Amino acid sequence: MQAKTALVLGGARSGKSVFAERLAEQSGLEAVYIATGQAYDDEMIERIVEHKERRGSMWMTIEEPLDLVGALVTHAREGRAVLVDCLTLWLTNLMMAERDIAAETARLALAIPGLAGTVMFVSNEVGLGIVPDNRMAREFRDHAGRLNQAVAAAVNDVYFIAAGLPLKMKG
Amino acid sequence: MQAKTALVLGGARSGKSVFAERLAEQSGLEAVYIATGQAYDDEMIERIVEHKERRGSMWMTIEEPLDLVGALVTHAREGRAVLVDCLTLWLTNLMMAERDIAAETARLALAIPGLAGTVMFVSNEVGLGIVPDNRMAREFRDHAGRLNQAVAAAVNDVYFIAAGLPLKMKG
Amino acid sequence: MQAKTALVLGGARSGKSVFAERLAEQSGLEAVYIATGQAYDDEMIERIVEHKERRGSMWMTIEEPLDLVGALVTHAREGRAVLVDCLTLWLTNLMMAERDIAAETARLALAIPGLAGTVMFVSNEVGLGIVPDNRMAREFRDHAGRLNQAVAAAVNDVYFIAAGLPLKMKG
Repeated sequence: MQAKTALVLGGARSGKSVFAERLAEQSGLEAVYIATGQAYDDEMIERIVEHKERRGSMWMTIEEPLDLVGALVTHAREGRAVLVDCLTLWLTNLMMAERDIAAETARLALAIPGLAGTVMFVSNEVGLGIVPDNRMAREFRDHAGRLNQAVAAAVNDVYFIAAGLPLKMKG
Repeated sequence: MQAKTALVLGGARSGKSVFAERLAEQSGLEAVYIATGQAYDDEMIERIVEHKERRGSMWMTIEEPLDLVGALVTHAREGRAVLVDCLTLWLTNLMMAERDIAAETARLALAIPGLAGTVMFVSNEVGLGIVPDNRMAREFRDHAGRLNQAVAAAVNDVYFIAAGLPLKMKG
Repeated sequence: MQAKTALVLGGARSGKSVFAERLAEQSGLEAVYIATGQAYDDEMIERIVEHKERRGSMWMTIEEPLDLVGALVTHAREGRAVLVDCLTLWLTNLMMAERDIAAETARLALAIPGLAGTVMFVSNEVGLGIVPDNRMAREFRDHAGRLNQAVAAAVNDVYFIAAGLPLKMKG
């Protein structure tokens, strides 16, 4: 089987994680979940627990808040479907750690074509509301838009999810 | 004629209500409008008046802020096109009345396949902006996303509207 | 060559300007850029400079914050591709100048079918997030939605851009 990469883009509670999980489960490959989210507060803990319960025990879970490229190089391989959930939480972690976002974005985009097996990225589209009041939120929105563009250009398939339904934009 | 259900999803001022109204009017069926919005303030009153004027006098209007399933069971029937405008205002009313949102969502989704005639639901997609600052808005966004997913799974057709133009996502 | 008009709609950092620029450059026509943005602050200055650098020296740039229809009538002609970037910044300027937005929207929509050459409009979709807290932002969102609908109805082609990828909605 040839390497296959995908970006699953959507809004909050659009069903994008469930869609990506189903793609992975239907592939029949060994499923690996790379969780980028960190449990900062109760809401985040609830979401992480909910996601874990939904996926069940068939998945191997890796937690990696910052070195996503390292985790991908280590865990992506022939016969596996790796799901990264999600790029926007990874971006949040990078911003809090004051990393160079443009460099990290480029590093990920450059690594994607060389990954083995199937790799799926879940990400939030956050640029379709009104301009946010605070500068940090505007910067996050700009970085997220550029990251989504870079990953969309690097992967084979791109899906936009709304109300649980996929719209194929590339592939 | 067989029963037909649809979800018309879109942003604020995307033309989603007009699109759904045209679908109803072009069906040649008796048109019934279920308004879920309540006139809390001047802006809301303006919008309700504007919507009423646009629809004209051919429509029968039912106001039902909370018991949407009851209103649908009563008013949906063969030969009628019922338009629910909109699910996100209904959700707002449910949250203000401290109802169990998961239960109400499930009740609506379960009722849809059994409805007679044509029934169209208008709803807002609200999850494509930056994460809102306040918890209430985040909860609303989560509930709205889950409600849209549940209704999208239950209806025959789903349209996403942007700039007045429909994109068929299901059906 | 016959006149051709397009609306390129998308979120912040969705790649909509780059997509429209490429359409213009690939047309082989003389490229004219109508910039509606005004340099209010450092962020805006950065964006204007970034856009200018990307376009390079092949483009003729016109700055027109308010009289967009006048600029279009003057500069759009056979053999030219005119790119208006963007309608939502133009709307911001109109609101700050306390113009009649409904009248300006109608004036633009009515002028579009009579324009010569190729004319492309870039605009932001801003209605897919949570309802904004402040009235000014809600008004902007409503005006932007109506403006996008009016322009979408008047042009030949409409594209929705997400993560740099186009989805053709009309044409």
